[in-house]
Formats: sequence, C-alpha cells, structure tokens
Amino acid sequence: MRIIVVGAEGDVGRAVCKELGSRHELIRAGRSRGDVTVDIADPQSVAAMYTRTGMVDAVVSTAGEVHFGALCEFTRETFMIGLRNKVMGQINLVLGGFDHVAEGGSFTLTSGVLDRDPIPMGAGAATANGALGGFVVGAAIEMPRRQRINVVSPGLLDVSVPRYGAWFPGHEPVAAGRVGRAFAKSVEGALTGKVIIVG
Amino acid sequence: MRIIVVGAEGDVGRAVCKELGSRHELIRAGRSRGDVTVDIADPQSVAAMYTRTGMVDAVVSTAGEVHFGALCEFTRETFMIGLRNKVMGQINLVLGGFDHVAEGGSFTLTSGVLDRDPIPMGAGAATANGALGGFVVGAAIEMPRRQRINVVSPGLLDVSVPRYGAWFPGHEPVAAGRVGRAFAKSVEGALTGKVIIVG
Ligand SMILES: NC(=O)c1ccc[n+]([C@@H]2O[C@H](COP(=O)([O-])OP(=O)(O)OC[C@H]3O[C@@H](n4cnc5c(N)ncnc54)[C@H](OP(=O)(O)O)[C@@H]3O)[C@@H](O)[C@H]2O)c1
Ligand SMILES: NC(=O)c1ccc[n+]([C@@H]2O[C@H](COP(=O)([O-])OP(=O)(O)OC[C@H]3O[C@@H](n4cnc5c(N)ncnc54)[C@H](OP(=O)(O)O)[C@@H]3O)[C@@H](O)[C@H]2O)c1
Repeated sequence: MRIIVVGAEGDVGRAVCKELGSRHELIRAGRSRGDVTVDIADPQSVAAMYTRTGMVDAVVSTAGEVHFGALCEFTRETFMIGLRNKVMGQINLVLGGFDHVAEGGSFTLTSGVLDRDPIPMGAGAATANGALGGFVVGAAIEMPRRQRINVVSPGLLDVSVPRYGAWFPGHEPVAAGRVGRAFAKSVEGALTGKVIIVG
Repeated sequence: MRIIVVGAEGDVGRAVCKELGSRHELIRAGRSRGDVTVDIADPQSVAAMYTRTGMVDAVVSTAGEVHFGALCEFTRETFMIGLRNKVMGQINLVLGGFDHVAEGGSFTLTSGVLDRDPIPMGAGAATANGALGGFVVGAAIEMPRRQRINVVSPGLLDVSVPRYGAWFPGHEPVAAGRVGRAFAKSVEGALTGKVIIVG
C-alpha cells in the first residue's frame, strides 16, 4: 500500500513507520520536515498535501497539539488549541482526504489514554481524545467508497517516558512496538468506527 | 439550592426545570430569553452572567449548538460550529464558573447519544458529545473546592420526536421525566467525572 503518515517524525509516528515501513510505501509528512510538509490545522495546506501525494491507500495521523495546564488556569484560548489542532486538524485530514484515498482505504487517527485515565493538567487532552473517539464512531457509518476510519488510543509510550513520564504518575508505559501494531490492525485489517486501545 | 439552568427554554432544559424547580430556586438562562441572557460561546458574556447571578450551588447547561450534515459535505467551518458552541461553550461555563459556585457545588453539562449510537448527518454531534465525555473525566480530578462535574447523555427525548424523530430512525425515545431525573442525580447526588447515560 501507499500510506501517508502525518507526524512521522514524532514518537508515535516513528513507531508507526517502523511497523508499516517494511511492508508498505510510506510518504512521511510533518509540519516542518518529511517527504511533504503540511499544517493539518489549515484545510488549504491539507489540500495541497493531497495534491502533491496523489492517490493513497491509507492515511495515518499521529500529529496533534494540545495545551497541558492546570484546569483552573485554562482559558478559552488555551483550551481551543487542542480543539483546533489535535481534533479539527486530524478531522481536516479526513474531510479533505475522501477523494485522495482509494476505494476501501482507511484513515487512522491518534488520541490517547487521558479520557479514560486522567492526569492533572490533562483536561484539554482528555477533551480532544474523547472528541476523536466520538468522531470515528459518527463518521464510520457515512464514509464514502467503503473507506474505513479508526482512532488508536495509546497509553504513554516507553520511548516518551523521558519527556513526559513525570506528568503520568503510576501510568504503565506501553511498548512502542505494540502501538505500531495497533496502527497495522487498523490499516491492514477490516475494523471501522473503533477506538483501538493500547495500554 | 440556587441553580442556574442555561438553555432552560429548550426541550432538555424544560425537563430539567420541571424536575428541579419544585425543590430548588432556579435561575433560567438562555441566549435570547430567561431571567438572564448569555451567549455561552463568549467567555465575556459568561463572566457577565455570573456577575449578575452571584453565588450559586449548581450550574446546569442544556445549551449547545452543532451542525448536522452529510459527512462528505462538512467543512472546517461547519464542523467548528459544534466545537465552538456545544463543546467550548459548555466548557466556558465551567472555566468561568469556579469562583461563582459554592464549595461542594456542581456543574452538569449535556451531550447526547450520537457518539455511541450514530446516525447519518451526526458526525459533528458525535464529536462534540465525545469531547464533553472526555472533558468531565479529565476535569473531575482537578475541580477546586470539592466541586463536582458530570455530563448527561440522553437519547432522543419523547418531546423532541416531532422536531427530530425523522433523523433518528429506530431510536427509542426517552421520556423527558427520566432525563430530568438524570440531572437531579448529578446535582443532588455525589457523582463526579461521570457520563450519565439516559436511554
Ligand atoms: N508520545 C506518547 O506517549 C503519546 C501517548 C498517547 C498519545 N499521544 C498522542 O499522539 C500524538 C503525537 O504524539 P508524539 O508524542 O508522537 O508527538 P511528537 O513527538 O511531538 O511529534 C508530533 C509530530 O506531529 C507533527 N505535527 C505536530 N503538529 C502538526 C501540524 N499542525 N501539522 C502537521 N504535523 C504536525 C510534528 O511535526 P514537526 O516536528 O515537523 O512539528 C511531529 O512530527 C499527540 O496527539 C499525543 O497526544 C502520544
Ligand atoms: N432534544 C433532544 O432530544 C436531545 C437529546 C440528546 C441531546 N440533546 C442535546 O441537548 C442540547 C439541548 O437540546 P434541546 O433539544 O433542548 O435544544 P433546544 O430546544 O433548541 O434549546 C436550546 C436552548 O439552549 C439555548 N442556547 C443555545 N445556544 C446558546 C448559547 N450559545 N448561549 C446560551 N444559550 C444557548 C437556547 O436559547 P434561545 O432559545 O434563547 O436561543 C435554548 O433555550 C443540545 O446540545 C442537544 O444536542 C438533545
């Protein structure tokens, strides 16, 4: 398959590329680097990315910014960062991608553990994760041309513990290889409308 | 208790007021009518509402606009209507309300059935509902002064069947009285961080 991986240079993206790269042709995308650059928060940038890549069999997104901060210090502006980027950004890849993904192809997005196992400072991420879960359930029944859509919801990756471990007290890190395989289950399998939990 | 009900004149809001009105002092709020008017999408309007109401024991929100439309016809703009209004609007009531709700008081928001039992045209609502579920889970562990937060997720109300029934094929309508009681469970009980499903 030809597969776009948006956020390929991130921790989750690298796990995906390691799992899928041996069997498939990957087009690595990122905001500042990759085979193609894109800002998923901007639908015009997403459209330009698809024009450059041409038809693909799958789109994987492991990109999505959210603000972390104490609940009482969140403002509308800091809260909207996650809704505009992690939520709307990944949804932009779907809304803009229908005509660029083959019949029976798939979209696989990334959420995370915080809407089922919350941490202090994580209310923005929990909201974004829940939104993406709702989106794939709602969208799956209306996807055109037998296209599928899922979201992978990983726990804290083992490779991310040095960066984020202190924020996730007591969370059991998840092997990056397991996270990569969850994306393979979505891309190479037949699931649709699922939140694929890893962790 | 003194309770603000935002969206009091809507179908869900009327069910809430009928249940809570006999036992509590209600302050009815809405965008265009009520004891006080407010646009929940605007944090300054929310702040002005709380200044007018003074301290309350509970805030109930049954307000929140989303766009309904075919998945393939959604744009970033139509999708953002639900994220800005139903999601961010209700969250604005929480972020702006901490200091205006008594110790041990509560916030109760409204989502809906579409993130677990989707309908065509409902991807925007499914996303908003999932977001609110994630928010209450994430926020509950950080609420100040023992405040609680839940979201009620009702199926299609019986009283709303004339307006929306045709969009919800096969959905079993839920008695408005049951929906009202779910809000009482949140406001008068001790739950926090819960999605209270009715239907
Ligand atoms: N790491 C974990 O343990 C973990 C666990 C669960 C969930 N998650 C979620 O998974 C997602 C990725 O996390 P991560 O740790 O892999 O992040 P990361 O290491 O910071 O990498 C993010 C990647 O996404 C790209 N990106 C960010 N914003 C973008 C935009 N607007 N348009 C296009 N590309 C963009 C970045 O590109 P540039 O570098 O070029 O900016 C980067 O390649 C996040 O939503 C995170 O919440 C992560
Ligand atoms: N009805 C159902 O069967 C059902 C089932 C499940 C979930 N829900 C959800 O429950 C919520 C309410 O539904 P509903 O059917 O009761 O709606 P509705 O009858 O249309 O009433 C909405 C109420 O909210 C107010 N409102 C709307 N936007 C507002 C804003 N930006 N600021 C302040 N007030 C605002 C409206 O005030 P004005 O009239 O003054 O504009 C009105 O009083 C929606 O999110 C809906 O998705 C409804």
